[in-house]
Amino acid sequence: MGCCHHYQTVAEGCDSAFTVDTSRVTFGRGCLAEVGERARALGMTRVALFSDERLARLPFFQTVLQSLKAAGLDVVPYTHVHVEPTDQSILEAARFAAEARPDGYVSLGGGSVIDTCKGANLYATHPADFLAYVNAPVGEGRAVPGPLEPHIACPTTSGTGSEVTGITIFDLLSLGAKTGIASPRLRPTEALIDPDCTATLPSEVTAASGMDVLSHALESYTARPYVRRPAPARPSLRPMSQGANPWSDLGCREALRLMGQYLERAVTDAEDREAREQLMWASTLAGIAFGNAGVHAPHGMAYAVAGAVRDFRPSGYPQEEPLVPHGMAVIVNAPAVFRYTAEVSPERHLEAAQWLGADVRGATPGDAGEVLAGRVLQLMRAVGMPNGLSGVGYTEADVDTLTEGAFPQQRLLQNAPRDMSKPVLSGLFRQALRYW
Amino acid sequence: MGCCHHYQTVAEGCDSAFTVDTSRVTFGRGCLAEVGERARALGMTRVALFSDERLARLPFFQTVLQSLKAAGLDVVPYTHVHVEPTDQSILEAARFAAEARPDGYVSLGGGSVIDTCKGANLYATHPADFLAYVNAPVGEGRAVPGPLEPHIACPTTSGTGSEVTGITIFDLLSLGAKTGIASPRLRPTEALIDPDCTATLPSEVTAASGMDVLSHALESYTARPYVRRPAPARPSLRPMSQGANPWSDLGCREALRLMGQYLERAVTDAEDREAREQLMWASTLAGIAFGNAGVHAPHGMAYAVAGAVRDFRPSGYPQEEPLVPHGMAVIVNAPAVFRYTAEVSPERHLEAAQWLGADVRGATPGDAGEVLAGRVLQLMRAVGMPNGLSGVGYTEADVDTLTEGAFPQQRLLQNAPRDMSKPVLSGLFRQALRYW
Repeated sequence: MGCCHHYQTVAEGCDSAFTVDTSRVTFGRGCLAEVGERARALGMTRVALFSDERLARLPFFQTVLQSLKAAGLDVVPYTHVHVEPTDQSILEAARFAAEARPDGYVSLGGGSVIDTCKGANLYATHPADFLAYVNAPVGEGRAVPGPLEPHIACPTTSGTGSEVTGITIFDLLSLGAKTGIASPRLRPTEALIDPDCTATLPSEVTAASGMDVLSHALESYTARPYVRRPAPARPSLRPMSQGANPWSDLGCREALRLMGQYLERAVTDAEDREAREQLMWASTLAGIAFGNAGVHAPHGMAYAVAGAVRDFRPSGYPQEEPLVPHGMAVIVNAPAVFRYTAEVSPERHLEAAQWLGADVRGATPGDAGEVLAGRVLQLMRAVGMPNGLSGVGYTEADVDTLTEGAFPQQRLLQNAPRDMSKPVLSGLFRQALRYW
Repeated sequence: MGCCHHYQTVAEGCDSAFTVDTSRVTFGRGCLAEVGERARALGMTRVALFSDERLARLPFFQTVLQSLKAAGLDVVPYTHVHVEPTDQSILEAARFAAEARPDGYVSLGGGSVIDTCKGANLYATHPADFLAYVNAPVGEGRAVPGPLEPHIACPTTSGTGSEVTGITIFDLLSLGAKTGIASPRLRPTEALIDPDCTATLPSEVTAASGMDVLSHALESYTARPYVRRPAPARPSLRPMSQGANPWSDLGCREALRLMGQYLERAVTDAEDREAREQLMWASTLAGIAFGNAGVHAPHGMAYAVAGAVRDFRPSGYPQEEPLVPHGMAVIVNAPAVFRYTAEVSPERHLEAAQWLGADVRGATPGDAGEVLAGRVLQLMRAVGMPNGLSGVGYTEADVDTLTEGAFPQQRLLQNAPRDMSKPVLSGLFRQALRYW
């Protein structure tokens, strides 16, 4: 529970302050019905309502639609969101938005829907070549020139945390790799988080998205502390991935405690409303935390794992295209990474394991990586995650491809607490091939 | 550490969601120098810089002034802030602002400075009779009709949390009582929190403002849970004092842990930079928590205690006028209140005591009030707080006056977890007269 000393010494030339941004968040059963009044209060008159085809058939889509209409707003729905968005699917959504000319956005869905909505809002409001805003070195990393239209994000999975972050993630088809755009301007104006939305999630989706939450919290907690990140030339250049800090630590600890206590229950019994509600709250907290600290290697490596997929088709997900669900692509790397990073902050790794419910009595600093990896593996097995990279179709022969795919994710890799050169990444991918 | 069950059952007709709002917060040594670039980024060109006469002679006032000027901004300083603002001093500040026509505000000071700046911004931007926006039933409680000019608040005490709340507090001279204005519109756009500002605080001020922090956390943690507050007619009417909720709980627990660990050190040794920094962080967290949950009886009673002061002049504070510093006026009520409220949520009261560092082994639910009150009293004595109301000049004969002064603070009293009728308040004031 200690850790105050983690931030006491500012390394030479490094940052001595951190900046916290958070959207307005409303959380609670039934709060979806608030969307109409909230949209109107934000000045919206014509709303682009983003969702996907499956969700559009579910009752809570009607709840949102009715609430918006009851508030006297024009609604133009867009439900062609691609699961795991691509540059093309985002540009298509942006063309829709440019033609529909909404003055506000509501997104109802998982990370794919919310991220597509952020992208559409961005490119319809500030048109540019697609690569202009994409994170360097893949894109130009140009700053978003001004505010976007207001956006209310309503998540239906307890996973990505996209409703409270300024990040959008997609496949860049030309590269065959995932990348993203990061800007505080992308953060939704409000998040409306109704845990009842997760009641109909297949248990496989609850499991994989729960693993994403778990890793958001673990990565933010073990990220390079902000006092070891080089100070920005100007405060406005302080990145959102600013490193672990006392604010993000709070959300991480509580998210870990809740995941340790409720994840298995939420996956094994969809009727366990308390567990699913607590998972949704953990997802919110982990989203706020990683939105202000940044994730690191497991996510950076995940982009390669998802991008190079060959023929993995997990149950519970659409079967048309091969797909490694994001949370799964992340968590297969996590135990290998934490075994490696524990050396630089063993006490943090042990603490994280303890919040997750591990028994850490008698553990020494030298055990920290193993204790944390062990607890993560225990949870992975309990909820049916694959046995490392081999479980999603990769072999030793893929290590170079994965390494080349992950290495460009410097925004994330530099947020890790230890060196993430290509040889290190290759070693980690190799260790992540099989865990049991 | 549990408590998830505290919010599982929504009482009949009560609210099932809570809403969290937070300003952008930057925290860290030296971050005051960021103010110029941040002000410019918010679109300010002409800044009203609020401070007080004492602070205006200190180096960090120059830091702020230079940073604003270096960013190319016009600066109009206002340093006539009244310690413990009044309706008149706020109106005077608003007249200054109306004449100076700034397009942004920066406040550098304690709660008095920040609250005066909020008030000046409000009445200069949306002119009205003073009572129009004042909380009902004392004022009309009218909603603030639109956004205010951007405001960057830079606190110099680790106390009020005003830099992150939408509340301004003042003496209404005609009534001889404290009251306030509460609106999300009043919340500063950004808070810039530089713990170095507290290095020169007299230890008496660190002690009293620390008690305010302690009570923000304890009151928010023990406040009526949001699921027992009647649901608002419309979501936009959900009050900022919405009651305890899982979000505010997080900030409260960490603030309590830090206060238990660092308060005495920060008061007894002004050179203890780590302790003063941790106190500043606790103050920020408790401010965010109570800004989203609300305080209750100890604060409601404090308005009467401060308002009816006769001749108390504590050391470390200006001696021209009698004054019960806000944190002192609050904490003298706290042990009596928690002995009374513990009955409705003994586990929360015990937990709070534990976060504060009390030994709760073997304590039963029936001991909860006494254990928490005991730990608060221990801290009060350790940092030189007065022995209850008698220590700030009140006697049994004042109980009726104090009760009449506190009872109109319904916004706060209704946020208490137990009935706060006049007979109850009188009983609490009587028990608060002397503790040891």
